[in-house]
Amino acid sequence: MAQLLRIGVIGSSECGEELGELARRVGELIAWEGAALVCGGLGGVMQAAAGGARAAGGVTVGILPGEDPRAANPGILIAIPTGLGEARNALVVSASDSVIAVGGGWGTLSEAAFCLKSGVPLIRLRSDLPELPVREAETPEEAVEWAVDQARQRRE
Amino acid sequence: MAQLLRIGVIGSSECGEELGELARRVGELIAWEGAALVCGGLGGVMQAAAGGARAAGGVTVGILPGEDPRAANPGILIAIPTGLGEARNALVVSASDSVIAVGGGWGTLSEAAFCLKSGVPLIRLRSDLPELPVREAETPEEAVEWAVDQARQRRE
Amino acid sequence: MAQLLRIGVIGSSECGEELGELARRVGELIAWEGAALVCGGLGGVMQAAAGGARAAGGVTVGILPGEDPRAANPGILIAIPTGLGEARNALVVSASDSVIAVGGGWGTLSEAAFCLKSGVPLIRLRSDLPELPVREAETPEEAVEWAVDQARQRRE
Amino acid sequence: MAQLLRIGVIGSSECGEELGELARRVGELIAWEGAALVCGGLGGVMQAAAGGARAAGGVTVGILPGEDPRAANPGILIAIPTGLGEARNALVVSASDSVIAVGGGWGTLSEAAFCLKSGVPLIRLRSDLPELPVREAETPEEAVEWAVDQARQRRE
Repeated sequence: MAQLLRIGVIGSSECGEELGELARRVGELIAWEGAALVCGGLGGVMQAAAGGARAAGGVTVGILPGEDPRAANPGILIAIPTGLGEARNALVVSASDSVIAVGGGWGTLSEAAFCLKSGVPLIRLRSDLPELPVREAETPEEAVEWAVDQARQRRE
Repeated sequence: MAQLLRIGVIGSSECGEELGELARRVGELIAWEGAALVCGGLGGVMQAAAGGARAAGGVTVGILPGEDPRAANPGILIAIPTGLGEARNALVVSASDSVIAVGGGWGTLSEAAFCLKSGVPLIRLRSDLPELPVREAETPEEAVEWAVDQARQRRE
Repeated sequence: MAQLLRIGVIGSSECGEELGELARRVGELIAWEGAALVCGGLGGVMQAAAGGARAAGGVTVGILPGEDPRAANPGILIAIPTGLGEARNALVVSASDSVIAVGGGWGTLSEAAFCLKSGVPLIRLRSDLPELPVREAETPEEAVEWAVDQARQRRE
Repeated sequence: MAQLLRIGVIGSSECGEELGELARRVGELIAWEGAALVCGGLGGVMQAAAGGARAAGGVTVGILPGEDPRAANPGILIAIPTGLGEARNALVVSASDSVIAVGGGWGTLSEAAFCLKSGVPLIRLRSDLPELPVREAETPEEAVEWAVDQARQRRE
């Protein structure tokens, strides 16, 4: 009856094919690790990652800015509509044991900053965030392995 | 790949044996319906309901007021630490398709008021909330059947 | 350079003439006491109270559910758009030293419940809230005198 | 009975003497413009700026992460304790017509990201934020003049 590990995936709500492929693979790997994938529940990187996790049988949580669960992308198993608007970005971080940034825009930057502020382990993959003291992964495999390892350490 | 139905269970963080039995049975029935149980993640009614649902193999979500996932009761599968304090009560409601109140104190009353304000279907079971225009169930079976039915109708 | 006392006024966003007159007088009296009036910033009781306080030269704060400051009623001096939706009700309470309920609907009930949960002193005036253990004032004068007195005691 | 302009000042809760002097001057200038100063209500840059504004007779608002108004720095006239934790950073931005960053750490970076995401005008002064597309001011005078001008344009 233990809690699931929760790995956050953050990134822009619009993304090209290459970034989408990476995010999808990240989601798949998180599912294979038996961890829940937490994200903002919308399109782009969030949709690709959640879709990859769901296709692999994983649990996906979408913490939505609005109040309508139908705004969630089709890969979300459990929608958490918050009605909090942009402030929900703080919750994507507080609800994650560790976080993987794939690409990213200003919303992603706010989430990365919350990670740095709160000490939530953060790794970036092909991320165009500004210069931040954040570990960089070369591959989805490296990102997920590190994130799961960090999440496990926080649980001990 | 459809979303899970989400049934909220609200009630006091401390409760006696009789209320605990009712809450446990509510959780079990929600799990049997294949819906996710959403609650505030702490003790009392929340713990009994989540424990009942987990023992029946269900998915349980605990939307916590603090930032520490270890504050979740042992029946929680997916902890959502928010750091929002009392404001998280609004999220327990916005994250639920319908809500069952079992017993209850002032926090429960705030959640019931949010249901009435937002039009989230609410049913009460052995609830000592003040006089409110809220349907009352005689048994856990009646409460869960009605809540699941209401949740399904909102999805159509 | 001391902080202002902050008296919350809660009530429905629509109200009739009689309730509006009472709310207006409550606002005026709060201003005369030199306290800031905190409210949800919208219409009805909030607008009448804020208008009364501003006409008497008082400071008024409107904690809005949306992100647009122009949604504030014309009596608001300092708009606090939150984008939090219904969760902003928790902030109207946490931002007040004591609270006066004038009339009221379901949103008001959620705020009253937060007062009872958090121990923020609450008094009601012509309030149709359900049966709650809340002191009742006969006049605006009695309500404001009690609320200011309670607020002062919390500051000592 | 018009609303006050609201200028946000963001920056670290600890700061050295030089940054404190700049922040204090920023606060003073905001007060002279007749605008309200909005900040996170704690120490460092927030305290220096609020202190400068109050000494010049200005209105200062502190949007606090916790629930205790006594956590506000002595320059705060109107405390808004939120209990929202880190999520209150989103409110410092949504409650400001424009924002000035003085120095800054990770919390400041999250606020800057919210400005960029939401289109709230942002200017930086002696800010060690990472490389962001944000206008830079040489002096407090330049920062406040620009911020007030931007805030006025948003009101028209």
